[in-house]
Amino acid sequence: MPDLSRFSINTATLGHQASIHATIEAVAARGFGGIAPWRREIEGENVVKVAQHLRDAGLKVSGYCRSTYLPAASREAWRRNVEDNRRALRDAAVLEAACFVLVVGGLADGSKDLPDARAQVAEGIAALLPDAEALGVPLAIEPLHPMYAADRACVNTISQALELCSALDPQTSGFLGLAVDVYHTWWDPELSAMIARTAADNRLLAFHINDWLVPTTDLLMDRGMPGDGVIDLGRITRQVTDTGFAGLMELEVFSAKLWQLRPDEILESASLACASLASYTDT
Amino acid sequence: MPDLSRFSINTATLGHQASIHATIEAVAARGFGGIAPWRREIEGENVVKVAQHLRDAGLKVSGYCRSTYLPAASREAWRRNVEDNRRALRDAAVLEAACFVLVVGGLADGSKDLPDARAQVAEGIAALLPDAEALGVPLAIEPLHPMYAADRACVNTISQALELCSALDPQTSGFLGLAVDVYHTWWDPELSAMIARTAADNRLLAFHINDWLVPTTDLLMDRGMPGDGVIDLGRITRQVTDTGFAGLMELEVFSAKLWQLRPDEILESASLACASLASYTDT
Repeated sequence: MPDLSRFSINTATLGHQASIHATIEAVAARGFGGIAPWRREIEGENVVKVAQHLRDAGLKVSGYCRSTYLPAASREAWRRNVEDNRRALRDAAVLEAACFVLVVGGLADGSKDLPDARAQVAEGIAALLPDAEALGVPLAIEPLHPMYAADRACVNTISQALELCSALDPQTSGFLGLAVDVYHTWWDPELSAMIARTAADNRLLAFHINDWLVPTTDLLMDRGMPGDGVIDLGRITRQVTDTGFAGLMELEVFSAKLWQLRPDEILESASLACASLASYTDT
Repeated sequence: MPDLSRFSINTATLGHQASIHATIEAVAARGFGGIAPWRREIEGENVVKVAQHLRDAGLKVSGYCRSTYLPAASREAWRRNVEDNRRALRDAAVLEAACFVLVVGGLADGSKDLPDARAQVAEGIAALLPDAEALGVPLAIEPLHPMYAADRACVNTISQALELCSALDPQTSGFLGLAVDVYHTWWDPELSAMIARTAADNRLLAFHINDWLVPTTDLLMDRGMPGDGVIDLGRITRQVTDTGFAGLMELEVFSAKLWQLRPDEILESASLACASLASYTDT
């Protein structure tokens, strides 16, 4: 069996088909080093028991997915979004998650004002940062691909996320950084320089792998398993490893095609995909 | 009738349904100031006659669409691509096009090497620049949305295109610049600064308008008419006008939905969309 201890399974990859407890067992049985659960799988559960199960299974939590979108059409709705994230942060702390993933949200309903959405995001993260620090859970801003700027995240490049970090956390507390996902960033002409800078700034909290398919038939649900697309994953994974990144390489694949398979079939495919990248995680 | 003399119709908006001569008549009859034809409509025609027809109809050519993709799996294929573009440049000169639009191409067939594709693009543009200058037709690099990095264009931001221009044409000859399309660039956190810099550097050769729909159901064929999506077109058009941009605002909408209409129906809708932006083009 290949060594998969440097890899983590984001549960979205499995299509949210099973309970978190069944997923923990299945992921641990394959030898993966961790898991990244989604709130929909956690919030109806006894979180303390889930955390105990994770520890018993020897799984780390590479990230807790994910924030409620921040921008809103009213100040009151924005406050509710922040409060929602505060609650999720408390669960992330119980899970001992390496980070809470911030998918920050796009335009507020009915708005075309992207600068305003970005300002609301900055203010929201600023409001959450003291909680993150008090709870010991770093916030990981995930720059999303520019094709999601309208409806999922108005933070769209590593450079933009790093500037946000510098502005909100100039002292580099350790509680604000980035989740870098190859799907969202592989196209960036500055990718290599920006990975280096993220690591040098001590902001690299999570690294997500998957692949860009050609053609891509759906904006959200047509991502590929590593190796099935055109991203030069070996090169990027090697660079991340060489920065000294100590976290897990998290496999996150949204795919309508993949989700037609059973979780154990998906995990089989995930094992092979991660094994093919294992040599790039050797330190 | 609203004044549409500052607007141009990219013939892709009309779905390439009619001959170039019929399109010239229809576009001129609506009062548009110009047109941007595609090679598929020109290369089977007597180009001198098309140019005469354009002059007779009082239409400017805001751009000639578009380059053959440059990156290739072999040096020989790359040379053919460059040569193909040289031929198109000669037609652009006959048409007195304001620019020849460079959609530069993505990864070479079978390749995952984005830096190599970008190097091939730079070398290809360098090879074409002397022809452009000799023929009097500026080359307009069009940064395409990052979602096209794999298969259409590996130049994906205004910043990247400007750096390419500086490297290849440090003396600012007037024959290398950008086509800025709101669809491809609206998400860019640096958009406003980059439009300003493009204009200040004398690199703004073309400006394309359309809209980003939410949801977007297809990566290529689901663009919107101005006003139907979430792009803050008034603000961006105002900024472009205020830079002193003297060219036409070119309407380019790829849309499977739109193309189900007849050209005259599309032109009716285009007239209304452009009229709604006319106040932002007042100098």
